[in-house]
Amino acid sequence: MTEQNPAGAAKVAVLGAGSWGTTFAKVLADGGADVALWARRPELASEISSSGRNSHYLPGINLPRSIRAHSDLERVLSDADQVYVSVPSQALRGNLDKVRGHLRPDAVVVSLMKGVERDTGLRMSEVLGQVLGLEASRIAVASGPNLALEVAKEWPTAAVVASTSAETAQLVAKTASNSYFRSFYNTDVVGTEFGGVLKNLIAVAIGIVDGVGYGENTKASILTRGLAEMTAFAVAFGAKATTLSGLAGLGDLIATSESPLSRNNMAGRLLGQGYAFDEVVASMEQTAEGLASVRPVLELARERGVDMPIVTQVAQVLDGTLEPKDIAPHFTTDSDLPLGE
Amino acid sequence: MTEQNPAGAAKVAVLGAGSWGTTFAKVLADGGADVALWARRPELASEISSSGRNSHYLPGINLPRSIRAHSDLERVLSDADQVYVSVPSQALRGNLDKVRGHLRPDAVVVSLMKGVERDTGLRMSEVLGQVLGLEASRIAVASGPNLALEVAKEWPTAAVVASTSAETAQLVAKTASNSYFRSFYNTDVVGTEFGGVLKNLIAVAIGIVDGVGYGENTKASILTRGLAEMTAFAVAFGAKATTLSGLAGLGDLIATSESPLSRNNMAGRLLGQGYAFDEVVASMEQTAEGLASVRPVLELARERGVDMPIVTQVAQVLDGTLEPKDIAPHFTTDSDLPLGE
Repeated sequence: MTEQNPAGAAKVAVLGAGSWGTTFAKVLADGGADVALWARRPELASEISSSGRNSHYLPGINLPRSIRAHSDLERVLSDADQVYVSVPSQALRGNLDKVRGHLRPDAVVVSLMKGVERDTGLRMSEVLGQVLGLEASRIAVASGPNLALEVAKEWPTAAVVASTSAETAQLVAKTASNSYFRSFYNTDVVGTEFGGVLKNLIAVAIGIVDGVGYGENTKASILTRGLAEMTAFAVAFGAKATTLSGLAGLGDLIATSESPLSRNNMAGRLLGQGYAFDEVVASMEQTAEGLASVRPVLELARERGVDMPIVTQVAQVLDGTLEPKDIAPHFTTDSDLPLGE
Repeated sequence: MTEQNPAGAAKVAVLGAGSWGTTFAKVLADGGADVALWARRPELASEISSSGRNSHYLPGINLPRSIRAHSDLERVLSDADQVYVSVPSQALRGNLDKVRGHLRPDAVVVSLMKGVERDTGLRMSEVLGQVLGLEASRIAVASGPNLALEVAKEWPTAAVVASTSAETAQLVAKTASNSYFRSFYNTDVVGTEFGGVLKNLIAVAIGIVDGVGYGENTKASILTRGLAEMTAFAVAFGAKATTLSGLAGLGDLIATSESPLSRNNMAGRLLGQGYAFDEVVASMEQTAEGLASVRPVLELARERGVDMPIVTQVAQVLDGTLEPKDIAPHFTTDSDLPLGE
């Protein structure tokens, strides 16, 4: 028995050995859990198991030797009480087909992913529930200001775990805590997930402003007003406003916007420097999630009657109908906005 | 008649020709106001009037030639309908003694200052009201993410003007708006002023973390939790929570924490690098406001029963009882915090 796991070491599986999946496996192992990590490619599984390294995704990081990596999904799932999923968001549905049938009947499934499924507009936890046929109380999501490499370096980090079941959220939060990584919990799955999606859009706006060459005043205003837009959107879908003011909203927004390594920030900077949308997409190895989400999010916002002036301005920059230098805190025409804004 | 001033050009005075006072004079002049600027030193007044420069405080910035600068306070005040005050916060009371008696009977007085009077704990607007004997409806405060040099460079900036009178706040916000500077308004003077005071304390914490060498995850968590502390404190004194989530709270907090030029951030970085409090104070030309406010703010918080774990940790670092590297998002002992935190 360890302090983190009063009921004995939790048996957990992590699906996906990219930078975040591998880092989360380390977080869980360092918290005392018994961790099996699934890597799609056998050679990656073998590198992790034999040398304690994932040199492509986490260069320079030594992983706990207790992590067992396999490319055999069934073996990883066979005795896991908690299954943490970190695969590309658009590949989730396909991967889950292979998971179904091997999941223990009472296992909890935790999404580590940030995004919505493009064709359906579903959040990751909704895809989990739909494909695996799980009750909501067996699903959780983890989010927050969690740049993978910083966590892997054991720099102090906080996160949020959400589940409609407070008991499930609490169990997962305890399992996913150690001396450098602290998970809080709540029951607002919608707010926690939307925070991780919406912050990418505002991070693109911040990148644009960086690219133009404006300073901290402009960026701080856009972050502040951007959080208000994110909150209005998420609340329209049933989230609690306080979730968006917390680590999964504001916290993640700040970390993403301030990190020069963020793809969304980088895409924005190129746009701000005057490159066209097509050129930006062509120059990037992976599409920035924020660019892909602009249209679907604005469509959803329109349906619910939510006003999103900053995201609208980002869309106009992408279209080439707004000069990047005209993205500014002057984004409403109502000069008499009350309440500190 | 201009668009900014439908009732004709406002006649305004700005008291104090430091970097922020001079910049605000430019903001007002660029918005169409007729601006007289008071500089204590005749040679500075003369430089501004004759060359349109304030080379010590705003190197490289050309001021509107319409700004008239004087060292004669009475002359500056004589026909001003709005008086904007930007003197060092601890020197306010002394300066106001000279203002009283020269103020037009219906003039509005606007504080551009961020701080509390050390001996009395009064906010700047409270000192204005007390010394000048003004009704609350004739007092306003302006705040927000407003790094002076960025505003002087005409980078897009948003601000907040607050007065208990919505009419006064609106009048001032209109006068203090132009193509690159946009003032919103509200009626929450307490929240708007405390935002500007409390953000300095959190900026010191961010500086400490920078100095230690931690990354964006840690800083984003401290900003998020720091805003929650600021909000709890201000609300205990009658502020609205939404004001703290706006430009005068969150916005100013982000701009100050991300600016390497901020004295509070710089003081924190030195502490984080292992210098003792005395060494930091000795090395800085001016005391960082945040360092001076830690004790009084914690005292006030204790009286109202507000918990401020981050500010408490900053105090412990100042005392030498906490290692800078132990400032972390793990700042509460309650592992079961609800609501996304």
